[in-house]
Amino acid sequence: MMYDLIIVGGGPAGITAGIYAVRQKMNALLITKDFGGQLVRKAGLIENYPGFEGISGLDLIQKFEKHLRKFSIDIKLDQVAKIEKRGNIFLALTQSKDKRESKTVIIASGADPRQLEVPGEKEFIGKGVSYCTLCDAPLFSNKTVAVIGGGNSGFEAAIALDKWAKKIYILETGPEVRVEKENQEAVKKTGKVEVITSVILKRIEGEKFVKALLYKTRKTGKEMTLAIDGVFVEIGYQPATSFVKGLVDFNERDEIKVDSETFQTKTPGLFAAGDVNIGKYKQIVTAAGEGAKAALAAYDYLRK
Amino acid sequence: MMYDLIIVGGGPAGITAGIYAVRQKMNALLITKDFGGQLVRKAGLIENYPGFEGISGLDLIQKFEKHLRKFSIDIKLDQVAKIEKRGNIFLALTQSKDKRESKTVIIASGADPRQLEVPGEKEFIGKGVSYCTLCDAPLFSNKTVAVIGGGNSGFEAAIALDKWAKKIYILETGPEVRVEKENQEAVKKTGKVEVITSVILKRIEGEKFVKALLYKTRKTGKEMTLAIDGVFVEIGYQPATSFVKGLVDFNERDEIKVDSETFQTKTPGLFAAGDVNIGKYKQIVTAAGEGAKAALAAYDYLRK
Repeated sequence: MMYDLIIVGGGPAGITAGIYAVRQKMNALLITKDFGGQLVRKAGLIENYPGFEGISGLDLIQKFEKHLRKFSIDIKLDQVAKIEKRGNIFLALTQSKDKRESKTVIIASGADPRQLEVPGEKEFIGKGVSYCTLCDAPLFSNKTVAVIGGGNSGFEAAIALDKWAKKIYILETGPEVRVEKENQEAVKKTGKVEVITSVILKRIEGEKFVKALLYKTRKTGKEMTLAIDGVFVEIGYQPATSFVKGLVDFNERDEIKVDSETFQTKTPGLFAAGDVNIGKYKQIVTAAGEGAKAALAAYDYLRK
Repeated sequence: MMYDLIIVGGGPAGITAGIYAVRQKMNALLITKDFGGQLVRKAGLIENYPGFEGISGLDLIQKFEKHLRKFSIDIKLDQVAKIEKRGNIFLALTQSKDKRESKTVIIASGADPRQLEVPGEKEFIGKGVSYCTLCDAPLFSNKTVAVIGGGNSGFEAAIALDKWAKKIYILETGPEVRVEKENQEAVKKTGKVEVITSVILKRIEGEKFVKALLYKTRKTGKEMTLAIDGVFVEIGYQPATSFVKGLVDFNERDEIKVDSETFQTKTPGLFAAGDVNIGKYKQIVTAAGEGAKAALAAYDYLRK
């Protein structure tokens, strides 16, 4: 069976592309390992997706998924291992060894959280080390925790943790934090957050669970130990793009280069929408808008 | 008082820009004659704004407006007559002779419906001639109506009218219609729509109310008369951009030229989002996405 469009990814960009594709009567398949992308890991209420004054990431993605499933689109819960182009046809090979053909492809596979890559990190995943503040914050009631990363996601994680933890450290490798004013003020208001900059992380220690974080600061060079019960990793995202190498160009952050009007990559018929591409502004509503534009551009490409 | 940002327009692009501006702690003013833009004139349910499976334009815009008003943004119900730039400062002059100053401006004033410009059109506005199918369709229960325009909006108007009218003509000036398949099929299904192409409209006639539409076709050159009770004008939109002449460049459709990543015009600090700009794809979710990007770009511009 030959599809008009294969969409890779089930976050806001992929789901919106799916809604638009089906409404254009395109014969479409969406492949994703799960629905939500970064939305499900989002800490706190989402207050900037127009139409919803305050909604959790999980609730919003459930609405998105339900909206998509209203239409007749094929959905395959699997992960794409490789995309190839043969002549005018794209081939999507999945991890379960499935092979699907399509005339166009939209990559909307988002980005995965970056890892610290220090000793103890992998060992204590689920035992104090978390990449999902929203999911895990309630486990740290009246505990002391560290958030790694002094950007907006780090500060938003600290704000979310305020409801649970008794003491929160934010650790930043740079000499200063780079954060929206609103987040800065909200963190200050908690009265329980301590920000430490110029940090070089050494390792995470513990027994059954995390007990301490060891680091140096660039200022003193002295090794310091923080007694903590949890580590929340908020140091950005790695675009999920390895399966499409050869067909697209990347920038220095491994983001896919696209035309910012049609979101087409350097390969005709291959598009990239949302967090995977070079776009500067990465928001739920911008990802959704890009998904719609990419689907309409794929439709235009097919008509020619 | 000097604003950080003035937003012109209260549709999806302007409202989303407002939400993002306030959350960035920008001191912002939104000027609009009313909320909604084209949304309030939208016929039928909106099924392609992710998160809402089916919602009327009025309901959606009310949610958008309520969402915006949750934040502390200045709102002025007025119309902008002119925007000037003096040094680094923008001046917005309104029809009520108000004068406001700002460091940046986002134009999100949308587009107004194009008029037929034939005799009888102005005379019978509200007496059978309508630019708002959704608002006026229920007045034409069991009547015969004509929709002018064989594009998607014309076909969607006919679909909306199906619930009310007993007979519907769609008149198109071109030799064929250019319509999404889904709309074409839905129109066919009504069994009461007749499409006439290559039409040259002559005039609208009536007494108290519209009674007839006179036209020629390019094929025969003969003048024809349709006995009808209503005329729905669906021939596209004219961007509302006259107040900003001199500061921006236009394309041949009077749409404002912008960079498609930041939505900045040729004037630094002046942005244009949504239906007013040259963007090819004009949807609710793409307008919202562009509003968010323009507000974040205005914030970046102010930081420098």
